[in-house]
Amino acid sequence: MRFPLKAPARSLLWRSLRVYQVYGANTEVGKTVVTTLLCKAARRLWKKEETGYVKPVSTGAATDADDLHIRRFAPGIPSKTLFQYDLAVSPHIAAEASKKFIPSDEILLNELSISASQQASRGPGWLFIETAGGVHSPGPSGSTQADLYRPLRLPVVLIGDSKLGGISQTISAFESLKIRGYDVDTVMLFSEPQYQNYQYLTQYFKQEHDIPVASFSGPPRRMENDTTSDVKNMSQYYEDNSKSETFQDVLNHLNARHQDRIARLESMSTKASDIIWYPFTQQKHLTKDKITVIDSAHGDCFETLIPETQPQESTTPVPSSPPPTTALLQPSFDGSASWWTQGLGHGNPKLALTAAYAAGRYGHVMFAEAVHEPALALAETLLAGLQNPRLSRVFYSDNGSTAVEVAVKMALRAARVRYGWDEVDDAGRLGVLGLRGSYHGDTVGAMDCSEPCVYNEKVEWYEGRGYWLDYPVVEYSGGTWVVRYPSEMVDPLGESGGRSRFEYASVSAVFDVEGREKGEEGRFYEDFLTATLKRLVAEGHKFGALMLEPVVLGAGGMLLVDPLFQRTLVKVVRQHPSLFGHSTSPQSPSSSPTAWTGLPVIFDEVFTGLYRLGRFSAASYLGVNPDISVHAKLLTGGLLPLSVTLASEDIFQAFSSDDKSDALLHGHSYTAHAVGCQVALESVKEMQQMEGRGDWEWAKGPYEKEVSEVSTTSASPGKDNLAWSVWSPEFIRWVDQLPSGFVSGIWALGSVLAIRIASADGVDSYKSNAARVVQAALLRGDGTDVGVDGEKSGDISRWNVHTRVLGNTLYVMTGQKTTGDSVWGLESLLRRALEDARKAGSA
Amino acid sequence: MRFPLKAPARSLLWRSLRVYQVYGANTEVGKTVVTTLLCKAARRLWKKEETGYVKPVSTGAATDADDLHIRRFAPGIPSKTLFQYDLAVSPHIAAEASKKFIPSDEILLNELSISASQQASRGPGWLFIETAGGVHSPGPSGSTQADLYRPLRLPVVLIGDSKLGGISQTISAFESLKIRGYDVDTVMLFSEPQYQNYQYLTQYFKQEHDIPVASFSGPPRRMENDTTSDVKNMSQYYEDNSKSETFQDVLNHLNARHQDRIARLESMSTKASDIIWYPFTQQKHLTKDKITVIDSAHGDCFETLIPETQPQESTTPVPSSPPPTTALLQPSFDGSASWWTQGLGHGNPKLALTAAYAAGRYGHVMFAEAVHEPALALAETLLAGLQNPRLSRVFYSDNGSTAVEVAVKMALRAARVRYGWDEVDDAGRLGVLGLRGSYHGDTVGAMDCSEPCVYNEKVEWYEGRGYWLDYPVVEYSGGTWVVRYPSEMVDPLGESGGRSRFEYASVSAVFDVEGREKGEEGRFYEDFLTATLKRLVAEGHKFGALMLEPVVLGAGGMLLVDPLFQRTLVKVVRQHPSLFGHSTSPQSPSSSPTAWTGLPVIFDEVFTGLYRLGRFSAASYLGVNPDISVHAKLLTGGLLPLSVTLASEDIFQAFSSDDKSDALLHGHSYTAHAVGCQVALESVKEMQQMEGRGDWEWAKGPYEKEVSEVSTTSASPGKDNLAWSVWSPEFIRWVDQLPSGFVSGIWALGSVLAIRIASADGVDSYKSNAARVVQAALLRGDGTDVGVDGEKSGDISRWNVHTRVLGNTLYVMTGQKTTGDSVWGLESLLRRALEDARKAGSA
Repeated sequence: MRFPLKAPARSLLWRSLRVYQVYGANTEVGKTVVTTLLCKAARRLWKKEETGYVKPVSTGAATDADDLHIRRFAPGIPSKTLFQYDLAVSPHIAAEASKKFIPSDEILLNELSISASQQASRGPGWLFIETAGGVHSPGPSGSTQADLYRPLRLPVVLIGDSKLGGISQTISAFESLKIRGYDVDTVMLFSEPQYQNYQYLTQYFKQEHDIPVASFSGPPRRMENDTTSDVKNMSQYYEDNSKSETFQDVLNHLNARHQDRIARLESMSTKASDIIWYPFTQQKHLTKDKITVIDSAHGDCFETLIPETQPQESTTPVPSSPPPTTALLQPSFDGSASWWTQGLGHGNPKLALTAAYAAGRYGHVMFAEAVHEPALALAETLLAGLQNPRLSRVFYSDNGSTAVEVAVKMALRAARVRYGWDEVDDAGRLGVLGLRGSYHGDTVGAMDCSEPCVYNEKVEWYEGRGYWLDYPVVEYSGGTWVVRYPSEMVDPLGESGGRSRFEYASVSAVFDVEGREKGEEGRFYEDFLTATLKRLVAEGHKFGALMLEPVVLGAGGMLLVDPLFQRTLVKVVRQHPSLFGHSTSPQSPSSSPTAWTGLPVIFDEVFTGLYRLGRFSAASYLGVNPDISVHAKLLTGGLLPLSVTLASEDIFQAFSSDDKSDALLHGHSYTAHAVGCQVALESVKEMQQMEGRGDWEWAKGPYEKEVSEVSTTSASPGKDNLAWSVWSPEFIRWVDQLPSGFVSGIWALGSVLAIRIASADGVDSYKSNAARVVQAALLRGDGTDVGVDGEKSGDISRWNVHTRVLGNTLYVMTGQKTTGDSVWGLESLLRRALEDARKAGSA
Repeated sequence: MRFPLKAPARSLLWRSLRVYQVYGANTEVGKTVVTTLLCKAARRLWKKEETGYVKPVSTGAATDADDLHIRRFAPGIPSKTLFQYDLAVSPHIAAEASKKFIPSDEILLNELSISASQQASRGPGWLFIETAGGVHSPGPSGSTQADLYRPLRLPVVLIGDSKLGGISQTISAFESLKIRGYDVDTVMLFSEPQYQNYQYLTQYFKQEHDIPVASFSGPPRRMENDTTSDVKNMSQYYEDNSKSETFQDVLNHLNARHQDRIARLESMSTKASDIIWYPFTQQKHLTKDKITVIDSAHGDCFETLIPETQPQESTTPVPSSPPPTTALLQPSFDGSASWWTQGLGHGNPKLALTAAYAAGRYGHVMFAEAVHEPALALAETLLAGLQNPRLSRVFYSDNGSTAVEVAVKMALRAARVRYGWDEVDDAGRLGVLGLRGSYHGDTVGAMDCSEPCVYNEKVEWYEGRGYWLDYPVVEYSGGTWVVRYPSEMVDPLGESGGRSRFEYASVSAVFDVEGREKGEEGRFYEDFLTATLKRLVAEGHKFGALMLEPVVLGAGGMLLVDPLFQRTLVKVVRQHPSLFGHSTSPQSPSSSPTAWTGLPVIFDEVFTGLYRLGRFSAASYLGVNPDISVHAKLLTGGLLPLSVTLASEDIFQAFSSDDKSDALLHGHSYTAHAVGCQVALESVKEMQQMEGRGDWEWAKGPYEKEVSEVSTTSASPGKDNLAWSVWSPEFIRWVDQLPSGFVSGIWALGSVLAIRIASADGVDSYKSNAARVVQAALLRGDGTDVGVDGEKSGDISRWNVHTRVLGNTLYVMTGQKTTGDSVWGLESLLRRALEDARKAGSA
């Protein structure tokens, strides 16, 4: 490959260079003519600046190419065609037929970016990039141009169609651009007198979209075989029109839009600092320079404004006001997956179209006592996908926190009804049995499900309701997978025999819960948990639910919990119903194999479910089926809020009564909103298809290899039982081997990577700053210049990684569409950042 | 006007008649040729059925019209052109030039619906409706066809463009249909060999949208001037192709789609009954026949499946299995505005495109320590729109309930910090001061803000925290506007002098709070409230916030609260800070005129704000500025969940500290999600523009007239102070005058109408059924046949009103785009339903 492609494609924006992409509403609408006029007019009006022209892909005889047209009629304008194919058909066919090199989308974008960057580095000016055919005409690779060029998200000049039918073509082309997040700054078309499309379109775009439409006479008709006259007429046409007020107005408008965009971007952090109240943020410490300004996003990356004072490299401070030829935007890998929500990529056109379809078909329609297709189909898809025979009912709400509140209301009522507890005396005392450090959301009811901690202890109405057990955690450390017991489980005289850890050769071996259950650990956990529960009940605790985040505790510190411990906890609770209450229910609870026993078991899979950890449900890692299952975040592929609480039929029946007030009187106005359900349906199906197609085989491969190599004691897991991650075992080993105890533990599962940085002061809490040094190094990112044909590429290879930390733990999370190449690039950046931070720390 | 237009346009669906709308990706793509083939093939394959053809609008010489083409090449197919204009240009120009009748969109849809309905009534068959030009080519009125025909939401056959550039045209046309909620069932195009668009499109639509593409050879080239040969060649072409397997497959596919759609619609209520857990519903009583199946929605209406057993009229029971020629769908006016969310109409294409734009530009991007344009612009717009100098900060969350929790967390902390209350001892005891029957949401924290009631009293963790005052309510009753005091305010010996009501001649007079404040009532309220607060504090209540739904209590029973009482309550709280605590804050709270005093005042405007009551903010009716303002529901125009909690700077500062854990540690993953913010920005601006343009003058007129007529004591309110409603004063008077005390009170403000039905048993609670009789009558709706030219129109005039009731109160709510005509139609239906219910009750 000729071009280094390490950095992702980025939005192009320079202070001094105005770059516009010219799209056509159709082929043969006059794109080249209008672009020639724009070039000529720009050169006339901005005499001291450079006006450039690029045609990324051209088809048809080279002698007839658009860049030659520019050279002939706008002499002196540097013009360039990047890829040219002789056949006068769509580029995807012409490229195939040519037997020439067919650039991938990445290479095409890279070439174009370098070309623009080179002009930008030469000084102020204009650059017009002319596309081929219509907005959705395919490029060489077969991707349609509107999709292909989207990562650059250049502002658009849309050339309207002045022919019969052209109104429709122009509006549809506009809409196709719009749903991909393009900003169309102006529409231009010929003032063809017969169809008068320009009149209709001028009014339409003004009224519907506040976009100006410029119209002007079309080029002179070509004479038969009289090339000399044609050229003369055409030259005259260009002379006249490029000097017209129309073009002056258009360029002034485009110039103003360019300046306004930059001015707005540069003012946003100050304005946000003044009027936004940020979630989960101590704003006293959030100075405006720390606010990331996001211009747009695509795939794995935000496009962020490069702060004026941000150092390029830790060793090379940058002047506080960069030259106007410096790129203003850089891709920032969204390393927290935007608070763990992202799956199918930012700016995903399919999800955008899906959202629009539901908005167009329904808007929002009320859900109480009603049903619509996306809500029903999503409910069916989730019930089928979870493969949990206990679950039969789907309750919709807005986010993980509300879905958890619904789950708790369900569970407590089911327990209270079955055990005949009093509505007034007992209900308020009912607590949840959970794990220490659990986090379930920020509404008061969800907060009450967690033990007192930094997130809730100062909230006036918070009241931890329940008991939270300590538990063994899993980490890769010292060259092996370690299950480490908390101190309260280590009893030299008791069952553990003083043992405080078990070691495994692979993460899959840790997740061989059925095998491990039969051994020493299984027995120990069962005995320990049975004794603990008896003690808690004896101490007066009254439980109405067992509530777990299966496998991983997210906000509690990104902890990988021993799956065998969670599995055993569920088993023990279910096996000892008499510990919790005495059934007063008329029918025996055991009459149905799917009825709950002991306590209703709630799995909060808001973070861990729907392929975050590589599987549809995190519960499958435990081999345990909850009675209530809560999902959100990835449910919509990362687009917008929606959540579901699924429950078993016997829990549902606990609310059945002749009294309306016995119902689950919970509801949100936008319950099961059509846009969310439709997007979720599309997202869940897409992720299921990805799994079915084997889209993650590239990631599984190294883990399969590792298992087969290290397989010693326990049987090698089948392909279905594999525990794997997009992060490579080789990288995990590298991190573990960093010198001087810089990293105290690491794990990866599915798309999640967590690295626990050893802190000098031994503090390991939410308030700790140990991981922030690495975070800062990632945010500085990579700004190495990329050499191409001996030329500097400018600054367009610069990118960074935007992460969140939890105490000493730095975590990075990919989406479900993130490619192996991207992870490889990320691992490289992480290696450098870890090395830098380690050296800085030991210096 | 020739056609009765009372019923809204509806989706067309019959069991026996398959109706397809043929759209073209462009003009000149062969729509008529393909439609002719479809007609011929359908007639050949379904010999015993009728195949029909309609061209709603045709331009160009009548002798060259498409229906003549059908008659020539598909003889025996009934074909019809509804509106024909001679000029061969876009219909909007041709119609204008013709000097002929130009149908409004409503008339065009009505004509087309009648035409289809007439064929449906004749028996099974096919109907193909051919559009003109491309999908966005304007119709006679100027609306583009994709918008114009949307209320019918007919399944689409899209004719692709096989010419150069046609790939782009076809995909863009498809996307324009998709974002309007159309289902494209198949794409068809000529297998043109040079450009091979069909190959690309077949793969594209299969892969991206799972839609089959049918391709086949195009028609023979016309010979120069040889009409006879042309006709012969064309006839042969039609013969060959209409018998081809391709067309057989297409029609079988369309037939299967049609059957599947109906089968799915008819199974949905059963499936929903089996797997959905409904919000706020006692499902024991929700039999599947009571579940409304919503196929789509448009403007004010759902399109709902007509239940098989639903009686058409109360007196005429219908056979349980209606004939296959009966329409399956009917428009149902969304009378609860989908739980009070709807403003800009269902299926609003502008909001759909706006949602898609944000989805395409960002997807969702994390908001902690970051900012993006829609979130910032929306924050700025709301702060400017509310015109409340106290508010300076915007906190985003997902829905009204979470936004209220945020508000409470803000207020309690601010009060605790200022008054130096202890974090552990005092915080949990802090309550809100509110009004009886207030409702703020269903999460536990929001529930705790309301007094014990049917919504919360059985919820295990509910714990009412505060005190809730009784208050005077406003109703029109007995020909006058009455302010009625609760019993606890009526003290024969005290300030009220035993008086229990005040009467006003207009609703605007009730809302003249400044005038009334200076009089007897103002003094009485102030004295009463001061004494009450002193008593409550003396009794040991400890308050951290005053929390009100300004003007109207929604879920609490749709009660219009005396605005003077709420205004006075805020005044009294602010004037008596020493009642609540003693400031320990270093700076004096009165140092800023926008700082809170007494208690932080929270206005929950989730239901009442953003034009629901006719104004941007309901607070303006009270002439009072809250310290914290909560908004949701209408915020997004009714599309999807989003909420904001706005707060004053001194409340924000209460969380400022060097300790991160002092921050407002509340956040949702999708905080300030771009799609929601962008849609909200568009919606809020649109409503502001509607107000600015005077779009509601039609509704204000009668109220201005009423005020000027009845103005006696107090000064007539200025236009800005007018209290008005879309519901006419004349209708309100009519309802009030219904005999035998059937209605005990009524009020209307902004888009809301509430009618309190007198119940026989005197029960007036959430559990009451008094209003359900009227609700049922509205649900039966109107099914009068509409006579046109002596022919029965079939059943296409049938429609109904879908409402929710609260105890004895029936309420109906419009959107902000609902027209005067629609309200007039609704009032007619309401009159009939009230009359029917009254007669049934007294019989």
